Amino acid sequence: MIYLDNSATTKPYPEVLETYRKVSEQYFANPSSLHSLGGKSEALLAQSRQQASSLIGVDPKEVIFTSGGTEGNNLAIKGAAFAYRNRGKHLITTDVEHASAHNAFHQLEELGFEVTYLPVDREGRVSFQDFQEAFRKDTILVSIMHVNNEVGTIQPVNQIGDFLKQYPTTVFHVDHVQGFTKVPLSLAKSGIDLCTISGHKIHGPKGTGLLYVRQGTMLSPLFSGGGQEAGHRSGTENLPGICAMVRAMRMTREKEEEGIAHLMQLRDRLFSGLSAIQDAVIHTPREGASPHIVNVSFRGIKSEVLVHALEKKSIYVSTKSACSSKDNGASTVLLGMGIPEDEAGQAIRISMAYENTMDELATFLDVLRQTVNDLKIVMR
Amino acid sequence: MIYLDNSATTKPYPEVLETYRKVSEQYFANPSSLHSLGGKSEALLAQSRQQASSLIGVDPKEVIFTSGGTEGNNLAIKGAAFAYRNRGKHLITTDVEHASAHNAFHQLEELGFEVTYLPVDREGRVSFQDFQEAFRKDTILVSIMHVNNEVGTIQPVNQIGDFLKQYPTTVFHVDHVQGFTKVPLSLAKSGIDLCTISGHKIHGPKGTGLLYVRQGTMLSPLFSGGGQEAGHRSGTENLPGICAMVRAMRMTREKEEEGIAHLMQLRDRLFSGLSAIQDAVIHTPREGASPHIVNVSFRGIKSEVLVHALEKKSIYVSTKSACSSKDNGASTVLLGMGIPEDEAGQAIRISMAYENTMDELATFLDVLRQTVNDLKIVMR
Repeated sequence: MIYLDNSATTKPYPEVLETYRKVSEQYFANPSSLHSLGGKSEALLAQSRQQASSLIGVDPKEVIFTSGGTEGNNLAIKGAAFAYRNRGKHLITTDVEHASAHNAFHQLEELGFEVTYLPVDREGRVSFQDFQEAFRKDTILVSIMHVNNEVGTIQPVNQIGDFLKQYPTTVFHVDHVQGFTKVPLSLAKSGIDLCTISGHKIHGPKGTGLLYVRQGTMLSPLFSGGGQEAGHRSGTENLPGICAMVRAMRMTREKEEEGIAHLMQLRDRLFSGLSAIQDAVIHTPREGASPHIVNVSFRGIKSEVLVHALEKKSIYVSTKSACSSKDNGASTVLLGMGIPEDEAGQAIRISMAYENTMDELATFLDVLRQTVNDLKIVMR
Repeated sequence: MIYLDNSATTKPYPEVLETYRKVSEQYFANPSSLHSLGGKSEALLAQSRQQASSLIGVDPKEVIFTSGGTEGNNLAIKGAAFAYRNRGKHLITTDVEHASAHNAFHQLEELGFEVTYLPVDREGRVSFQDFQEAFRKDTILVSIMHVNNEVGTIQPVNQIGDFLKQYPTTVFHVDHVQGFTKVPLSLAKSGIDLCTISGHKIHGPKGTGLLYVRQGTMLSPLFSGGGQEAGHRSGTENLPGICAMVRAMRMTREKEEEGIAHLMQLRDRLFSGLSAIQDAVIHTPREGASPHIVNVSFRGIKSEVLVHALEKKSIYVSTKSACSSKDNGASTVLLGMGIPEDEAGQAIRISMAYENTMDELATFLDVLRQTVNDLKIVMR
């Protein structure tokens, strides 16, 4: 099996599952319980929060554990919009966000907020100038992803964060789900107030995530209740999941420097290999993109047909975002980039993890070349 | 160790953790991925949903997997309030709900909804008559817990459900977190439209839960996004957690009849043993309460003092709801029942699981009697 759908989800590390089991068995008490068993769980929770915060260079108080990227994005976007609704009603985002951000903004529009969706260029990038023009005195929230989940394009979040430092009344949220451990992003002093991270994209457990909430940032909670997670996210803490996710964070962080260098080599190999296949059109830009995603169309072959042909050879790639892969129609990200509809409907996303090897890519490229040729013969 | 804090959380069954591990390893692909690995995950998800629905006697389409009871309550309450906000603004709940329901209603009040909080009697029960008097033509949502989490009192949800069948435009939500597998509740044809269940209260994993959403009931989602869980709850499904929770549901369901009978015996033993201790005041009613919870005060001894004294003998009970056990002040549930503040501040909650034994209770009662006496001597 050659698994190249790591942007959809990753295989959990065995150590992560081991942590999950141990904590479930040995720390099953509710961290909110007053007795000493609860105290033991509470201490482990505090230790996990400390570790997570130090891995992303923030204060432990700024780490909120969530159930994943979708919760993080929704809590950040709706939470900030509702908390600051009396200050203004204008929100800025982009045309190419993940469905969890995009649809949160649609819901807010129905509830009376005004949203500016920034367009992207041919490479899938928003322009800083467009952002500046869209920015208003009543803009209470700006939400922009760091790395696009379908094409890998890096957005100018540092430049926007720098700009927003002058406007402390505007909250800046960054969806860092694809970028984390692939494209470094410093949070402290970045102008970023909220930042979403997901556990299962970095070999952690599903149903886990983290939201960075800069001190002083208010959120109207999605989950009201017992006031856990500094009141931002009530509910009995999923301690086994939290500890297992933090273990995955630590493990990927330790491998990060080497891992990113390795991904860059894999990506170079992919670029050269794909370019050599007839009728391949690579949508991921050479510069300013994450090293783990390559999006490519093969003219004349529908995405689904190619995905299913490859799976027969035990190679797994995707058409677009898993979260929208069952919608009909071409990728809205590619369409937003100005790619014609038929070509967008022929795109596949190849997404890699540190563990993929050069040998796997060589096999993949051989099989791909052969499969594309076979499909073209069939179609003639 | 004698663990009697099962209403705060339960120890996961070993089989539950085994299922979690197996699914994490063998079905790690994203159920939304188009390829066959994703398809395998999707099929397992469908099978789990089928099993869960048959265990609670509803249609698979009516089962929404969540991250727990707090999410379930918030999604039901806020989701219904927002979905039906153009139909009316009046909501009915009680004075003794879990914090996750209670605080959701507070948040809705801030957003312009009008909430009637029904009082409870000396046994912690709302009256059907009070409910009927509070009910209005513009009541869009009624939310009442089945079993109170602090005293175990059963609310007249069947009677209220029957009444509400005449009013199909009012949504009826029941928080069944404490009642599930302790006090039978039939959902189909009950007049109940939404029902919250939590995984970790029935020896399942933390971070898992289920919301029953009767067909045709609309919810404004807390998590917008990829449209998973019939659009009610987007986000990559926590498949290992879901399968593990469903296994816990199956296991507790299989033991349920015998388990409830056993809990009733334990409870009888508790009632007689506690009554024999001087200055004990039992708050849990003899009739119309769940068999797994007994709430009792010992005059002159503060709750926290007793909890900590018992933990030294490896016996774990709680003061009140774990989700509010670190707030200062007495239980709002007991205060709502008209119990004086000093007595309410002396209450402990004993909450049992099927696995607790008569021997454990005998030991517990001996230690408790001794501890109460010792503390009284110290205090004199």
